[in-house]
Amino acid sequence: MEEITQQEPALSAIDSLHEALDQENIELARDVIGSLHPSEIADVIESMPGYERDNLWQLIDSELEGDVLSHMQDSVRTEFLEQMHPDRLADATKNLDADDVADILQDLPEDVADTVLRSMDEQNLQRLSSILTYAEDTAGGLMNIDVVSVRADVTLDTVARYIRLLGSIPEKTDNLMVVDRDNHYLGVLPLTELLVRDPQSTIGVWMEEESYLSANTPKTEVAKLFEQRDLLSAAVIDEEGRLLGRITIDDVVDVIQEAAEQAVRSMAGLGEDDMFSPVFVTTKRRAIWLGINLLTAFLAAWVIGRFEDTIHELVALAVLMPVVAGMGGIAGSQTLTIAIRGIALGQIVKTNIKPLLKKELTVGILNGVLWSSVVAGIVLLWFDDPSLGLIIGVSMLINLVIAAFAGAMIPLILKRYGIDPAVAGGVILTTVTDVVGFMTFLGLATIFLIT
Amino acid sequence: MEEITQQEPALSAIDSLHEALDQENIELARDVIGSLHPSEIADVIESMPGYERDNLWQLIDSELEGDVLSHMQDSVRTEFLEQMHPDRLADATKNLDADDVADILQDLPEDVADTVLRSMDEQNLQRLSSILTYAEDTAGGLMNIDVVSVRADVTLDTVARYIRLLGSIPEKTDNLMVVDRDNHYLGVLPLTELLVRDPQSTIGVWMEEESYLSANTPKTEVAKLFEQRDLLSAAVIDEEGRLLGRITIDDVVDVIQEAAEQAVRSMAGLGEDDMFSPVFVTTKRRAIWLGINLLTAFLAAWVIGRFEDTIHELVALAVLMPVVAGMGGIAGSQTLTIAIRGIALGQIVKTNIKPLLKKELTVGILNGVLWSSVVAGIVLLWFDDPSLGLIIGVSMLINLVIAAFAGAMIPLILKRYGIDPAVAGGVILTTVTDVVGFMTFLGLATIFLIT
Repeated sequence: MEEITQQEPALSAIDSLHEALDQENIELARDVIGSLHPSEIADVIESMPGYERDNLWQLIDSELEGDVLSHMQDSVRTEFLEQMHPDRLADATKNLDADDVADILQDLPEDVADTVLRSMDEQNLQRLSSILTYAEDTAGGLMNIDVVSVRADVTLDTVARYIRLLGSIPEKTDNLMVVDRDNHYLGVLPLTELLVRDPQSTIGVWMEEESYLSANTPKTEVAKLFEQRDLLSAAVIDEEGRLLGRITIDDVVDVIQEAAEQAVRSMAGLGEDDMFSPVFVTTKRRAIWLGINLLTAFLAAWVIGRFEDTIHELVALAVLMPVVAGMGGIAGSQTLTIAIRGIALGQIVKTNIKPLLKKELTVGILNGVLWSSVVAGIVLLWFDDPSLGLIIGVSMLINLVIAAFAGAMIPLILKRYGIDPAVAGGVILTTVTDVVGFMTFLGLATIFLIT
Repeated sequence: MEEITQQEPALSAIDSLHEALDQENIELARDVIGSLHPSEIADVIESMPGYERDNLWQLIDSELEGDVLSHMQDSVRTEFLEQMHPDRLADATKNLDADDVADILQDLPEDVADTVLRSMDEQNLQRLSSILTYAEDTAGGLMNIDVVSVRADVTLDTVARYIRLLGSIPEKTDNLMVVDRDNHYLGVLPLTELLVRDPQSTIGVWMEEESYLSANTPKTEVAKLFEQRDLLSAAVIDEEGRLLGRITIDDVVDVIQEAAEQAVRSMAGLGEDDMFSPVFVTTKRRAIWLGINLLTAFLAAWVIGRFEDTIHELVALAVLMPVVAGMGGIAGSQTLTIAIRGIALGQIVKTNIKPLLKKELTVGILNGVLWSSVVAGIVLLWFDDPSLGLIIGVSMLINLVIAAFAGAMIPLILKRYGIDPAVAGGVILTTVTDVVGFMTFLGLATIFLIT
């Protein structure tokens, strides 16, 4: 029994493990590991650089290996799977839930996966194959098939006796699934009903309707349903309405956590990188993002280049131009974030795009007027040049309004073309606010200030 | 029973609702609302501008009002609570879980909260008061007190008869809590054991140790424990080890979702804004962020201003300087994101800061060398000036390495001073990469290019 308080015991465990490994105090390290939950061991491994990871892995109780693997982030897991002997891998996966094994198998090279599959017994194979039929990111890929299903016309007492005979119920079972003769899903019988209702009544009387999922529902939709309906589990059915398995909330929590991680990562162009991915893998992933951004930086530079003569005549323009472009970028990314989240949560639909756009433009104008005036005032004092102040104020106002418009529209347009707005939105927005910012500021200056 | 498929039925419901309200077709709107779950109604309300929200609210079945309120995002809920009559509010909260009522009460002005409290019956009041003792963002604030607790020395059969007498078990009960004579928490008895074990055996035999939480554990730690241990529920205890209540996974899912939302929002300086917060509220919140960023923009401008003479002599510098600063910002924010997430997930500890820093610096140098060479080449071709190419290459390399260092260290330093790195990290990083970028590029140019 372990109490979790503010002292962050998991953190100190990581620290003492690192220290034990540094001092090559294997006994101490083994003790610390022994006190951790498999998911915490996975966390610790992820927080270690590559060379330490392998040392730690050697110290893990072989019975826990599968469990630890199933809690690892994909990129780290793949690293371990690639070096493991297929037989050892088959051993490690023996005690895992079928959905976890399916996850792991999908990360393996085909020949290794085959070896693992061949080492399994009939029942596990059968379970796996029905999960592997569906893509990893669908309800079918998430489900487990350890379902207790019952018929509507039997009595509660019969079911109770049946369960007692089974001797155990699959973990995290809150509902029994009610099916007809042909395994068509009808509804659920909450386990608690077995405890409180008249044993002689039939299941049909107490059966409840409950949300269910078709096997090819995308996992983001699965997460949404669980969240909205406060479900602990939900049935998964095939196209004919036959019961295939069930999804439990603990797997959905992982989906939610993953989606949140990905939203943050994709905005910085990080892909699936973990903290200690090999240096060359990380370098390559990030290099691509830097390259894309370099293109847009040169586009902006090219725009400035059109105004070399103007800048030569009035160098103050070069001093101030990053202010105009930068403020546009900040304001635009505020709108962009709202729009991207709104799309991700399904809250932006055809009919509320107009009011959203109207609101964002109004906010853009109000903040534009406010901060343009402030900037104009500062520039007036700094350079003692009223026309320069006026020009920077006007161009900033224009850029902030266009930024609001672009921030709202870019994700909508990207989504229509099937591009993830969280990945591409920021780069495109910055390009717009840079180009518009430099162009209006330097352009207006060329027209009105240069004689 | 409702099937969730890729057709996103919730979305089309939002659309048809908007349309029905637009056409003032109240009957249709009422029908659509009737088909939705309270959490979906809350979603729809959040996706509507203010004037439509009130219209929709009028159409909601008064029995569902409390449920809908409990599913709303804080900022939207406060908006409704402020206009509701206390009596109606008291009515609406009658059927809610105590933890949801506690949430709502904490959003209310004190006098209104008093009225609601006074309208409650004794039992509910007692339940509420024990939750309200603890801060909203702790285990105590999250918990519910509808716990079924039993003693270790009674038989399963006695418990089964007791439950049958109660006639119902609180929703989402997976475990009965085992306590001693003085209500000290001892462990749990999974409900399923009641169904499979010998009725004449005592609870003590089948009791399991299970993770529990002290009431003042922060909710982020609560979420972490649930995630790591795949829990459905956990006991909450006071300092003396006495059982206070339990937390269920559905409330934890909300915590996880909220934390993810907040991570994304705080990076853009959005605060608690929702999509259709009143224009002036939104404008004010964002204005603060823009103001902070304006300060850093002017700091960068001031740095450029130190080099006016240099730029006057070589205007190409003004054309290229945003490239140096911008690429530093992008590279730095990649490292920053990794570090912020690592801190949030508790994966960065004292002993792995050094390898992390080493890795990030190595990646910074590698990508620095790669992209500096590319930029130097492009500049050589564009301006036909080898020394300018060399200078931009060197300053970009310096900026990318410093960006990696700053991206890793800024969140660590901010955290030490108790500042949320997700909020302040980006602004500070950009300030560093802008200042360093402009200073090295223009500085080196002044020294080596200007005669």
